[in-house]
Amino acid sequence: MGGDHAPDDIVRGALLYRDIGGPAELVLVGDEARIARVLGTKATGIEVVHAASVVEMGEHPATALRRRDDTSIGVATRLVKDGKADAVVSAGNTGATMAAALLILGRVRGIDRPALCGMLPVTSERKATCLLDAGATMDADARNLLQFARMASAFMTKVHGVDRPSVGLINVGEEAEKGDKLALEAHALLAGAEDLNFYGNIEGRDVLRGLTDIALTDGFTGNVVAKTLEGALDVVQGGIRRDIFGGPLGKLAGLVALPGIRRFRGRFDYDPYVSAPLLGIAGVSVVTHGRAKANMMRWAIAVAERAVASRLVEAIGSTAAPAA
Amino acid sequence: MGGDHAPDDIVRGALLYRDIGGPAELVLVGDEARIARVLGTKATGIEVVHAASVVEMGEHPATALRRRDDTSIGVATRLVKDGKADAVVSAGNTGATMAAALLILGRVRGIDRPALCGMLPVTSERKATCLLDAGATMDADARNLLQFARMASAFMTKVHGVDRPSVGLINVGEEAEKGDKLALEAHALLAGAEDLNFYGNIEGRDVLRGLTDIALTDGFTGNVVAKTLEGALDVVQGGIRRDIFGGPLGKLAGLVALPGIRRFRGRFDYDPYVSAPLLGIAGVSVVTHGRAKANMMRWAIAVAERAVASRLVEAIGSTAAPAA
Repeated sequence: MGGDHAPDDIVRGALLYRDIGGPAELVLVGDEARIARVLGTKATGIEVVHAASVVEMGEHPATALRRRDDTSIGVATRLVKDGKADAVVSAGNTGATMAAALLILGRVRGIDRPALCGMLPVTSERKATCLLDAGATMDADARNLLQFARMASAFMTKVHGVDRPSVGLINVGEEAEKGDKLALEAHALLAGAEDLNFYGNIEGRDVLRGLTDIALTDGFTGNVVAKTLEGALDVVQGGIRRDIFGGPLGKLAGLVALPGIRRFRGRFDYDPYVSAPLLGIAGVSVVTHGRAKANMMRWAIAVAERAVASRLVEAIGSTAAPAA
Repeated sequence: MGGDHAPDDIVRGALLYRDIGGPAELVLVGDEARIARVLGTKATGIEVVHAASVVEMGEHPATALRRRDDTSIGVATRLVKDGKADAVVSAGNTGATMAAALLILGRVRGIDRPALCGMLPVTSERKATCLLDAGATMDADARNLLQFARMASAFMTKVHGVDRPSVGLINVGEEAEKGDKLALEAHALLAGAEDLNFYGNIEGRDVLRGLTDIALTDGFTGNVVAKTLEGALDVVQGGIRRDIFGGPLGKLAGLVALPGIRRFRGRFDYDPYVSAPLLGIAGVSVVTHGRAKANMMRWAIAVAERAVASRLVEAIGSTAAPAA
């Protein structure tokens, strides 16, 4: 029931996943009648579990989840807790998905704080960069950042097949002696972690360039960076649409430039990569974009399936175990 | 001597400023022979002061300034200290300009830490937003942020004529109870500061939208945001050039769309606003973009002149005085 195009595109994404033969079995959780309307006669093999309410946008997620046990994200997450599902996927409010994951599934033993991976489209040969923490944890310390780097490395390896993913620490300069207290401490810990492929410091401009597979920072800075990029792309895409391809001449130019426009859009089309599980949660809870349409939803389910099949949660647990 | 196009475009910017009748008297500081070559026969009314060396890009600025007293930024800043000039303007390494300003001019009495204002082009009716601190101070506390807000308000009022500039605190959500420890404390201080026009929290996506005149954050986050935006605009502009308007069809489309492309570029053409004085320094030291060409340089001189004429440094000093 979450996201800008729910439930229609969520349901359509599930159908798309089923129709291309995705291995996961699907359970749709939410308003049964509304879901049934979209499913129509195509419901074969898809289970529906009714949830009468949702966490409203204005609500404090944890409060809503404690007060009502019939929210769609609460019911779906409890299916995982109860072993009736292997993963939960949501395009809804990230705060609500995270609150449900923390309250119902809890943290992996040994992981002190969870992290949210914001997947970004990048222009290097990499397909996407995992920016984390995109806002799950406020006031992280250097040891938290080290754990985030390990969790993200496990995620990029297990789910996206990246061999020894490189970790860049977002900082105000490339030199090891640059940064605030947190960055300096984190740099020292990361440089000493032999299990990680630590690249060193990277700068803000390197994130979208895809200099590293993982761009590591604290949840405050990561959230601001992720939203800044989102805003910048919106502003630029709106400007291109209105300024360059608006008006009669612009429309003509747009027809001529169509193949190029498609190529340009393709760079920011990263439906297969946009979804990511909450890292550090004792279960697979995948967050996808609130703007998710059917195709993005289909890929979000695939990410969840790969996280389960590759035993990502166990892998994260083993990174948290004290070194031998 | 600083910046990508020095000394040629720096000199040309000075000539441009003089030729449009700008009120400031100009002193060019650097390699006398190279400057003379660009000035040619047009040197009327422009003084040249020789400086034999520069702070090299790889050098630690403060060390270079302590070791050599003939760097162009050192000599130029000392002209201000000695009362032989009212302001210094540089397109060189921001770190070197800042180190010279701190070492030679020092801080305004009562201001604990300096702040760097990164001026951003925005799409609202505002011309530009001052993002600060863009990296002058690491590990700022909430009282530092309050001072930054007051300094930026004085700057936007005095230099850009903005009446009661609005201050947005960059945070992970709009609600007052959102954020890390620093953001929560800063919010409380800002909300209680009756001399400020405090808007409340803003998010990363609001910065480029120009929701407020001032986007306030600590120097770590501000630096990362500024460089992230720079990188994003580079990536997008490169993509537009190559993908949409590259190739024969694209070139044709580009001809047809030319008025629109000019309109689009115009949005990011903010030469009059890009330069800003270092805030909290006991003198006017204006930083402009390393990419500055003559026109941007001309405007940087105008910003310096307005900062001097409007007594910005004194105004900042009076915001630091204990309230009556």
